[in-house]
Amino acid sequence: MTAPSESFAPRREEPVFARLAIIGIGLIGSSIAHAARDLNLAGRILLYDRDEAVRRRARELGLGHDVADSATDAVRDADHVILCVPVGACGEVAAEIAPSLKPGAILSDVGSVKNAVVEAVLPHLPDGVHFVPAHPVAGTENSGPDAGFPSLFLNRWCILTPPEGTDETAIARTRRLWEGMAAIVEIMSAQHHDMVLAITSHLPHLIAYNIVGTAEDLAAVTQSEVMKFSAGGFRDFTRIAASDPTMWRDVFLHNKDAVLEMLGRFSEDLALLTRAIRYGDGETLHRHFTRTRAIRRGIVALGQEKPETEKLRKS
Amino acid sequence: MTAPSESFAPRREEPVFARLAIIGIGLIGSSIAHAARDLNLAGRILLYDRDEAVRRRARELGLGHDVADSATDAVRDADHVILCVPVGACGEVAAEIAPSLKPGAILSDVGSVKNAVVEAVLPHLPDGVHFVPAHPVAGTENSGPDAGFPSLFLNRWCILTPPEGTDETAIARTRRLWEGMAAIVEIMSAQHHDMVLAITSHLPHLIAYNIVGTAEDLAAVTQSEVMKFSAGGFRDFTRIAASDPTMWRDVFLHNKDAVLEMLGRFSEDLALLTRAIRYGDGETLHRHFTRTRAIRRGIVALGQEKPETEKLRKS
Repeated sequence: MTAPSESFAPRREEPVFARLAIIGIGLIGSSIAHAARDLNLAGRILLYDRDEAVRRRARELGLGHDVADSATDAVRDADHVILCVPVGACGEVAAEIAPSLKPGAILSDVGSVKNAVVEAVLPHLPDGVHFVPAHPVAGTENSGPDAGFPSLFLNRWCILTPPEGTDETAIARTRRLWEGMAAIVEIMSAQHHDMVLAITSHLPHLIAYNIVGTAEDLAAVTQSEVMKFSAGGFRDFTRIAASDPTMWRDVFLHNKDAVLEMLGRFSEDLALLTRAIRYGDGETLHRHFTRTRAIRRGIVALGQEKPETEKLRKS
Repeated sequence: MTAPSESFAPRREEPVFARLAIIGIGLIGSSIAHAARDLNLAGRILLYDRDEAVRRRARELGLGHDVADSATDAVRDADHVILCVPVGACGEVAAEIAPSLKPGAILSDVGSVKNAVVEAVLPHLPDGVHFVPAHPVAGTENSGPDAGFPSLFLNRWCILTPPEGTDETAIARTRRLWEGMAAIVEIMSAQHHDMVLAITSHLPHLIAYNIVGTAEDLAAVTQSEVMKFSAGGFRDFTRIAASDPTMWRDVFLHNKDAVLEMLGRFSEDLALLTRAIRYGDGETLHRHFTRTRAIRRGIVALGQEKPETEKLRKS
């Protein structure tokens, strides 16, 4: 059994959903299970993972009320079903569970890419079932059923991308679930989501994965040196580059156009800075380095990050 | 007057240096002033900054024992002089203070680039004065005399790059000063330092500055959206890209060769990942994303970073 968490969010008198099903028990799935249970967001929470060892571990951890032995068992009679699987698996899972979804149920997901998920899931959606895709912009470098914790979504944005014409009540109830977990909900189109996330998340991950790889391949600098002196900046990239490889492979394969567009812009800009270094153009460098400070202040002001010294002094 | 800090390091019975001079009162200079005073590493600490407003602020903050009105006044009779100015200013400052350095004194600096500093400073070095360049691999996104705090160097590496033939006692005393501030000291050549830091610090900063610039130039995604959804990865880059522009301009201008070499490798590797995305080569992506996890674990194991969930749960 999970212990009630410290009060990062109020516990509901009445659950938002009578029966919640979570398919896929990784960092996100297990965090939803913790939060929904601690905060009474669902009367009954069923989980399923296709990996038997993960199901066993989820039972040991006491995640949700029960761990089912099949996806169809987990979703039967559920009012809200959340696919917490890699983006590339959403279509297949949707096809498998579709016949077992009850009329009026809401199907959702947590994928970091939305357009590809909508395209993969919609063809399987039974009449009378609502589809409200969601993307909680939250995560840590850890994955698996042990990685979850209830306050993962606290003060983090959750983006909903309901296809046009989606039932308003289904959207409102999905919003209530995420707001119940202390997330801040925003609604936008799947297309726009994919562009926004390409620059704020997908490109940073690709760059981080890339620079860590470059560092590993060096012969003149040992890996031990790279690790020792990582506090100079590299360290922050390694945190991102430790994210789940399968999840991120799927993100790049399924948000190809937006990522390639951002990559193109990034590379053009980098060519400019490279040239400034080669020709000793200090003015261009200084001008560029000055204007990037404002966006940092905005992020701190928005409460999405604490100023760094505060964290350092505490630690 | 600065209050004694919490005991992050033991206070010395006897100071390492009778008289310490700090030229340049930014994040690093003010942090050394705090630490050296709190931990009794110097009997008397004198500071100087060429900016009058900074000198006034340093006096208000009670940094060191006195703030001199000229660099020559600050260094006169000093046993240890640390240049805490941008890398590009080291040669000029060395030329100015050289006639006032007393025989047997140790001249040092804190620059993030070492070969260029050695080349700029050595020609001005008077006979009998020892030169022990230092680079504390520590920092925050904040600059100026208010940014400093005594435990900045705690558990951070400080790299010394004494030119061949440097007096061993001078090296040992410089080591004792930094170890007294709870840093971990390592000695290597200036050339090797510049290569190691090019990959662990300089390239990450350039990449971070670049991606934040790319994000700012987008028309399809607003700045407000970039800030709101930054928790997906972008946020970590903005912290680095908020670093002092003058310091970093100088780093890139003075470690040009090593930075261009690392940039070349980085761009080649990125072309490979870009191609894998374009042609849907999930296997290449997955293989690359898997191997980068090990280096992260090494950094956490070395105590240079706490695992992320630990920080998140605390906050």
